[in-house]
This record gives sequence, C-alpha cells and structure tokens, in this order.
Amino acid sequence: MPPVSSEVVLGQLHWRYATKKFDPTRKISAADWNALEQAVTLAPSSYGLQPWKFFVIDDPAVRKSLQAVSWNQPQIVDASHLVVFCVKQNPGTADVDRYLDRISEVRGAPRESLDGFRKMLLGSMNRPGGEVDVWCSRQVYIALGVFLSAAAMLGIDACPMEGFEGEKYDQILGLTAKGYSARVIATAGYRATDDRAATTPKVRFPVGEVIEHI
Amino acid sequence: MPPVSSEVVLGQLHWRYATKKFDPTRKISAADWNALEQAVTLAPSSYGLQPWKFFVIDDPAVRKSLQAVSWNQPQIVDASHLVVFCVKQNPGTADVDRYLDRISEVRGAPRESLDGFRKMLLGSMNRPGGEVDVWCSRQVYIALGVFLSAAAMLGIDACPMEGFEGEKYDQILGLTAKGYSARVIATAGYRATDDRAATTPKVRFPVGEVIEHI
Repeated sequence: MPPVSSEVVLGQLHWRYATKKFDPTRKISAADWNALEQAVTLAPSSYGLQPWKFFVIDDPAVRKSLQAVSWNQPQIVDASHLVVFCVKQNPGTADVDRYLDRISEVRGAPRESLDGFRKMLLGSMNRPGGEVDVWCSRQVYIALGVFLSAAAMLGIDACPMEGFEGEKYDQILGLTAKGYSARVIATAGYRATDDRAATTPKVRFPVGEVIEHI
Repeated sequence: MPPVSSEVVLGQLHWRYATKKFDPTRKISAADWNALEQAVTLAPSSYGLQPWKFFVIDDPAVRKSLQAVSWNQPQIVDASHLVVFCVKQNPGTADVDRYLDRISEVRGAPRESLDGFRKMLLGSMNRPGGEVDVWCSRQVYIALGVFLSAAAMLGIDACPMEGFEGEKYDQILGLTAKGYSARVIATAGYRATDDRAATTPKVRFPVGEVIEHI
C-alpha cells in the first residue's frame, strides 16, 4: 500500500482550487501552519541551493497596504495567511558558502571535501545576471507547487497569485534591503461557504492532450 | 481530521530525495503512472492557461540518445519513467482560444461570456516575447513541484533534473516542430537498494532561516 492512496492524492488535487473568497473568521491552526512551513522548506531546488526565502505577512496593516498593490484582491486581507515567495537577488559566493557550510554541518562532511562542488556551483552562478535570476526564480515556483500540494493534502485552501506589483512588494516589505525580490504569492486559509469558485467545475485539458508518449 | 495527516505529508517529503540510482528492474505500475499523469494535469497555472505539455519517453533508444545529451546521467535510462516538462513556444491567440473553448465545454458557458477574459489573456500574451517565455516557464515548474509532491505521497521515487541540453532535447524529440521547448525533466521509479544518496542526510536551511514573519 502506498503511503497515501492515489484516490486521496487525486481527490485532494481535485478538491483544491484557486480560492477567491476566504472565510475571514477561520484561521489555520499553529500546528497546521507549522507543517506547511516545514513542507515548503523541504521543497527541492537545483543543486539543493534553496535560492529563496518565504515571507509570511502577519501584520494586518501591512496586509492592507499590500492589498492596494494587488489589484485590491480580497484574499490578501481575508485569508488566514499570506506568503510571499521570494528569490535571492544576485546570489554569489556568500550564498554558495552558506550552503556548503550547511551541508558540512548536516552531514558532518569536511568543508574541503566540498571544494569541487563549490567550484561547480560558483560556475553556475557566473552566468549573465538575468540568466541566474531566471534560473533561481524557477526554483521558487517548485516551492510554490510543493506548498500548494501540501496544503491540498492537509485540506487547507490556498490561492496562488501573480496579480501583484512585485516592485511595490519589494519596497513595502523591505525585501530589496534584505537581498530578496517577490516572485509569486499564495494566500491560504479556508474557503467561504459562498465562494462560487469552489463549485465551478475545474478546467483542465484532457490528459491525452497534455501528455504525449514518445 | 485532515485528508492526509501532517505526519504523513512531512514524512513523505522527508522520504523523497533526488534519486541518483534507480533500480532498472522495477517499473511503476500502469495504475500508479496513470495517477501521476492525472496529478500533473491537475497542476495549477496562471489564469489556468496550462501553457505546457509533458512528454513521457517510453522508447529505450530515444532514452539512450537523450542520455548522451544529459551529462550521461544514468537515471535517464535506468528510471522506470522519464518526463520532459515543456513550455508552449510563442503562445498566442490560438492557445487562448483553445483554452476558452475548453472552459466553455467544461462549464457549459456561452463562448461570448468569456470575451472579457479573452481580452485580458491576450493582453498578458502581448508582452515582449522573452517575458512571456519567462512567465510560462515558471508555470512549468509549478507542475514539476506538483508532480514531485504527488510521487512522494504515492511512495514513488523521482529525480528532478536540469542537467541536460535543452536544445538537443528539442531537436531529438521533435519538440520545436510541435511548438514546445523542454524546460526541466524528471525521472521516476524506485531507488536502487545501494543508492548512497538515499541515506545521505537531507540538507535544508532551518525553517527559521527560510521563513520570516513580518
């Protein structure tokens, strides 16, 4: 028997949807939120670099000011939680060394034994700036996929959102000064009982059109 | 009770790892593979556009030729399945209309009722070419995250891989002619009993360093 049956996995992926209207009175429990934080932390990334940081916006006043630069979408203030998925800006030697220090710490590996890997990682960083950002930003979207999947398995509603002014987020949240930049956001919580989007049939192309065997 | 307990979700996300050595004798069952195909088809995307296609490479000879342009990594031929996650090239009016036709079909909505949405989607497509590809390619990585999460829940091993020559993949698989381009790949199957990577401790930064509350 698999750890989770395919019926449950697919059932939850069907159950999830981009929640348009959250119940503002329902909060995700501390235990569940903690699980979601752990889940997104476990997301894989290229070389394991984790070129990201996830900001959880608890302050209602900050949420309100973010809503104004998010096409006024209600989820920004009504959802239990708001996560801003950010990419590391201009990752370089310090980021590689921080990662290698962590590998050394977790695996008890001598730092010198990682010199070859270090050289490879620095080579990957040494591309034109735009390319590195493209590459690292894509990793952030893996984390989003893992977050949304984990939320679905836990029965927590979520809404991934790209409809926001990234530069304004970077300013309002002081992300630029911290070395990060917002790429995508997700709101999470529980759907309102009258969210019409919850009962609107999910639209996907048929499997046979999306997947081709060669 | 949640559909899946946080212990199981986190347990499986801990259990998964980038499989370096697959057992070449173990194949994913047709039922399990079917579930994974359905799972990735259910992945969310911006506006629900699904600007992607996923190619599953069954032909051993093709797998062999892909291995040669994938740094000779053994997973390409040893894994039970290989999926090439592709982005739609130069998405435009035809893609938008195909999507709107599908919405109309699934929801029984008159096609005219989607005219406003159509205008918005076409506006999003009408950015400089590079920006559209950046945007759509990121969506492909959401699908990767959903695929990897679903595999983990089902107890199926996988390895996401960026170490391949994308242009060669596009040529060998005839993707360019089909209007797609490879962005990332994943191998899936079952770990070899002697894959050392399976027992090497997972390296992640602590939750407190990856997540910041504001």
